[in-house]
Amino acid sequence: MSEKPRAAGAPLLPQITRPADLAALPEDALPALAAEIRAFLIRHVSQTGGHLGPNLGVVELTMAIHRVFDSPRDAVVFDTGHQSYVHKLLTGRQDFATLRQEGGLSGYGDRAESEHDVVESSHASSSLSWADGISRAWQQTGQGERTVVAVIGDGALTGGMAWEAVNNIAADRRRRVVIVVNDNGRSYAPTVGGLADHLGGLRRGVLDKVRIHRRYEQTLDLLKRRLQAAGTVGDFVYRPLHAAKKGLKDLWAPQGLFEDLGMKYIGPVDGHDLAALEAAFEDAHAYGGPVLVHTITEKGHGYAPAVAHEDDQFHAIGRIDPETGEPVSSSTAQSWTSVFGEEMVAIADERPDVVAITAAMRNPVGLAPMAAAHPDRVFDVGIAEQHAVASAAGMAFGGLHPVVAVYATFLNRAYDQVLMDVGLHRAGVTFVLDRAGVTGPDGPSHHGMWDLALLQSVPGLRIAAPRDADTLREELREAVAVADAPTVVRFAKGSVGEPVRALERLADGTDVLARLGEATGADGADRDVLIVAVGSFAELGLDVARRLGQHGISATVVDPRWVLPVAESVVALAARHRIVVCLEDGVRAGGVGSRIRQEMRAAGVDTALNEVGLPVEFLAHGTREQVLERVGLTAQRVTQDTVAQVLGAKVPYARPVPGRAPDTDEALDAEARHRTPGEDRS
Amino acid sequence: MSEKPRAAGAPLLPQITRPADLAALPEDALPALAAEIRAFLIRHVSQTGGHLGPNLGVVELTMAIHRVFDSPRDAVVFDTGHQSYVHKLLTGRQDFATLRQEGGLSGYGDRAESEHDVVESSHASSSLSWADGISRAWQQTGQGERTVVAVIGDGALTGGMAWEAVNNIAADRRRRVVIVVNDNGRSYAPTVGGLADHLGGLRRGVLDKVRIHRRYEQTLDLLKRRLQAAGTVGDFVYRPLHAAKKGLKDLWAPQGLFEDLGMKYIGPVDGHDLAALEAAFEDAHAYGGPVLVHTITEKGHGYAPAVAHEDDQFHAIGRIDPETGEPVSSSTAQSWTSVFGEEMVAIADERPDVVAITAAMRNPVGLAPMAAAHPDRVFDVGIAEQHAVASAAGMAFGGLHPVVAVYATFLNRAYDQVLMDVGLHRAGVTFVLDRAGVTGPDGPSHHGMWDLALLQSVPGLRIAAPRDADTLREELREAVAVADAPTVVRFAKGSVGEPVRALERLADGTDVLARLGEATGADGADRDVLIVAVGSFAELGLDVARRLGQHGISATVVDPRWVLPVAESVVALAARHRIVVCLEDGVRAGGVGSRIRQEMRAAGVDTALNEVGLPVEFLAHGTREQVLERVGLTAQRVTQDTVAQVLGAKVPYARPVPGRAPDTDEALDAEARHRTPGEDRS
Repeated sequence: MSEKPRAAGAPLLPQITRPADLAALPEDALPALAAEIRAFLIRHVSQTGGHLGPNLGVVELTMAIHRVFDSPRDAVVFDTGHQSYVHKLLTGRQDFATLRQEGGLSGYGDRAESEHDVVESSHASSSLSWADGISRAWQQTGQGERTVVAVIGDGALTGGMAWEAVNNIAADRRRRVVIVVNDNGRSYAPTVGGLADHLGGLRRGVLDKVRIHRRYEQTLDLLKRRLQAAGTVGDFVYRPLHAAKKGLKDLWAPQGLFEDLGMKYIGPVDGHDLAALEAAFEDAHAYGGPVLVHTITEKGHGYAPAVAHEDDQFHAIGRIDPETGEPVSSSTAQSWTSVFGEEMVAIADERPDVVAITAAMRNPVGLAPMAAAHPDRVFDVGIAEQHAVASAAGMAFGGLHPVVAVYATFLNRAYDQVLMDVGLHRAGVTFVLDRAGVTGPDGPSHHGMWDLALLQSVPGLRIAAPRDADTLREELREAVAVADAPTVVRFAKGSVGEPVRALERLADGTDVLARLGEATGADGADRDVLIVAVGSFAELGLDVARRLGQHGISATVVDPRWVLPVAESVVALAARHRIVVCLEDGVRAGGVGSRIRQEMRAAGVDTALNEVGLPVEFLAHGTREQVLERVGLTAQRVTQDTVAQVLGAKVPYARPVPGRAPDTDEALDAEARHRTPGEDRS
Repeated sequence: MSEKPRAAGAPLLPQITRPADLAALPEDALPALAAEIRAFLIRHVSQTGGHLGPNLGVVELTMAIHRVFDSPRDAVVFDTGHQSYVHKLLTGRQDFATLRQEGGLSGYGDRAESEHDVVESSHASSSLSWADGISRAWQQTGQGERTVVAVIGDGALTGGMAWEAVNNIAADRRRRVVIVVNDNGRSYAPTVGGLADHLGGLRRGVLDKVRIHRRYEQTLDLLKRRLQAAGTVGDFVYRPLHAAKKGLKDLWAPQGLFEDLGMKYIGPVDGHDLAALEAAFEDAHAYGGPVLVHTITEKGHGYAPAVAHEDDQFHAIGRIDPETGEPVSSSTAQSWTSVFGEEMVAIADERPDVVAITAAMRNPVGLAPMAAAHPDRVFDVGIAEQHAVASAAGMAFGGLHPVVAVYATFLNRAYDQVLMDVGLHRAGVTFVLDRAGVTGPDGPSHHGMWDLALLQSVPGLRIAAPRDADTLREELREAVAVADAPTVVRFAKGSVGEPVRALERLADGTDVLARLGEATGADGADRDVLIVAVGSFAELGLDVARRLGQHGISATVVDPRWVLPVAESVVALAARHRIVVCLEDGVRAGGVGSRIRQEMRAAGVDTALNEVGLPVEFLAHGTREQVLERVGLTAQRVTQDTVAQVLGAKVPYARPVPGRAPDTDEALDAEARHRTPGEDRS
């Protein structure tokens, strides 16, 4: 019960500070609250950017959950937390002016924000595993009366992990797990040509479906009664009818674990009908075992520009005009993604064996142009990175050259397949990793900061990190030309920036971007600092080099273009500099710099090397610039550290002990003791 | 047609050198061939060890496949290649005396052995993705008449990746993919207590099932005809009946990709009835689209000791007496696995919050004793590592401390879940990685050589590598005592070996195992070489230290016990030695040595460090000793390299240029130039 009296006629939303306030609202006030929530979301997310369409689709669904269940006593787990904005609003978090901004509200779940949040990761298909785990724990610890509610989209159900979880949840009828399927798949809508008809068509589709399913349920009930009289054979017929309650596996081949699956199914329910939703959730709550509630929602519901948006119904937006839905950004800068997308069309035009694979993100990864030009050569496999990668190995075996285009952070889902299906079989598969490195407002689980370290351990794999549009085109072509090994092309999020010209291309493909300051050595090639700039850090490397020049320190800046295997020229150049600084937009533990260091040692080159990259930490949201500043990846900081080290290295080492010749190890030791701990950040 | 005349009465198997020879055999000769194959497998695998039970179960199935399909024109893909021995025998590979031995036949698929092999990896649930990829490639390249046959066990179908693949295969009716489900699940057998009854009971179970399914099929046909007359509603009832042809997803929520799923289902077929199998495969072949053939087989079929074996029907064996099935090994050495299993019982007795999770390998990972003592606290989730890990995060949230016990190589499947579900949420989950490092005869996809490098990138995660039984017990207890971070305990395959005593335990937990040779320095603590021995390489480290002593080189040997985070004592000791040698049973790129090196630099310690570990290569099968020898991980080689480096380091550096004081950088450069490239193997 709410402790606060409700002011008549006043806006409702500001009065909701916790789920109990919502539960205390009379039913007739709910539609007005839903309308307020939609207006609130549109008003704020149009300013901050974020996931608008998914949240407009779950307004009533989330309200009904919080009216029926008792969070945080009951746990509410959102699959891909981007559909939890309404949940935030109903659990005391309405400061949406700060959404996805440094220090502000996260765009996903965040336990630090609220006791009502459980899962912070944004990777799909995991909620059912969480629900299974939490309910097992509560069962073990005498808290079996608490319910876990998992809200999962129909798209996330294509992920194999969700299937693994369903098999486990359904096998134990005692645990209170409510799976709410938020089914907003576009495939329900009749195919319509005109934008104007679209909303109406979608609604008709949903209503038709609800009617058909009602008839189906009635038929099922009738059949069930008749078949139960028929005994064993009847049971064999009836059981598959309840396939929604059972894993496909169980239908193929019932086995121990899942033989007796019996998850209750409720639905389909109109996901915008609050009364129907509450009734369904009440049923699910009362059931006391695992139950699936199938709700039909409309992405972008209640906001015409979103519903009308052909591609994705405003799945995730930047700033928009709330009236028209048009982007307000005036930026016309070309993105890395679009350069890739264009070049893929050109390559596909020339090479019939090149195909593309996406895990449910055809447009975000830039494959729309290729899909338009070659519709039968772009394969969307669902949210199924494991299958995307392993099937690519099969395609390579069959004579194709697949390009698997995926956000860098999501490749983590398929490490084993990259290693065992592609790597072990030396398959000619190219991985294109978009949103690599620090991405910004989506926070710790969206940064693509793991790939450079992770992929070092895959034998034979080669990694390119283009620095601008031209090198992206060039390296993508080089990658698809490799037939007997996996290749990776990785680039950052956002605008591709200005071209960065090379002074010279060395024989092994390394580009020398700058030689600043006076060289020494017999042939005039030795300088103080070798800066190895990975990918889009070329600009950072050049900036550092210029700043070093102001301190009288000479530098060479190279872009190896292919960072794995380590270029021989980088090792050779390292031997002719006093310090190597490797700049990479990824975790520095085991990253590119670390590997260069190992190759240098293998070649007997012991020049000091600073691995400048990201710490092994989860990095909270903020703009890319703010995050890079936070971890010290700025020209100023890198320059300071490098200057200190160069000066430190120039400090004469301890004088030899009288009567004894200094040897190299003593020199090393002495030098080590002179260094102050903070001066290098590897 | 066989080109060779068949010698009447002579053994058949030696005459089969390729599938065409088999196809040419008259039907009445087939049972004799099947019997010969079984006798052959029992005779050889009882000597070499290997996967006996699974292969005895697929004799007829494999024969039928090769009589109906035309390999290699048609591709035959075995899920987990350990069930491909019969396939090897029928495709020209009968030298089973060399099975799983260095230079001999692989225990899995191997393209270098035969054009009939496709997949070399031993990780489960991937075959359907391969089949999907190959068939797509053939469709794209005008080879759509070729068929892909995937043989997958019912167990492998619990893996999410298989579901992802089914969704994709079923969505395209044009492609010739035949999924052969080799269904040998124990759950079909009536529960029987006595060994003597077991074989009979199992057979009865299978026969009962076949009969029941025949009735089911007949009922289905009848129902189909009646329902089709009922129009739309009838279709809604009929479609779920064919759930085996459709993803569960599709039943819940039909969507674009899978809306029109229509995979044909044939079966169940008695998997030991050659005529029935051939008929089913002929049907499947003729169908021309995706089709699933459900076969019921018996693991260990035809070999009484295997069928009678309660645990796993001789899934994988060492040397046995072929008559009795009893192990012939006289080794009574305790295994790492059993030490872990015992200690888990002790811990679980004390701590009710500790539970264990296995991905379909309860006994192999040592959880049988705990399952006996606490049956409700050991969870088998199926071949579903992703779910195992993410549900563990949920359990930790719910108040338990889960121990996920898995072979090291299979954790690769769940890297994303370790990072995003466990790591990001600072969950108190302990991973116990068995078979870590080089394992031996199972070859490249079974070595657990990736974990130490892979897990370096997970923020907050801690890794322990026990060196003997006592430290395993101790470190396991330390691990489960950590509530706010993931912990890992990793150990090797096989016998745990003799205890390795510590001279001293330092304040941060590092054990000093040996101090050999004369110390120098102000307090007499400095020595030549610091050997950091990870886990079971303690013995190797001590051996190297003793050998160094013979060259007059002093050494300290430490076992950090916890290798992540890097122990401060290791960094401090490194500063007091001339060279650090880190010995680890994992890829050296980005491994423990690499991380120690980074921490040393961060602390200003620039002592040279050699990362001695495994190269980033796939390592072919052989004994563990043979593989370690091959990659140079022997005391002799490590000693040689270290001696050369210590001597190298003692070579006086280049004389200073007259008139100019030597500085440290020149010393470094000169020293670097003195080194010969081969002398360190990092």
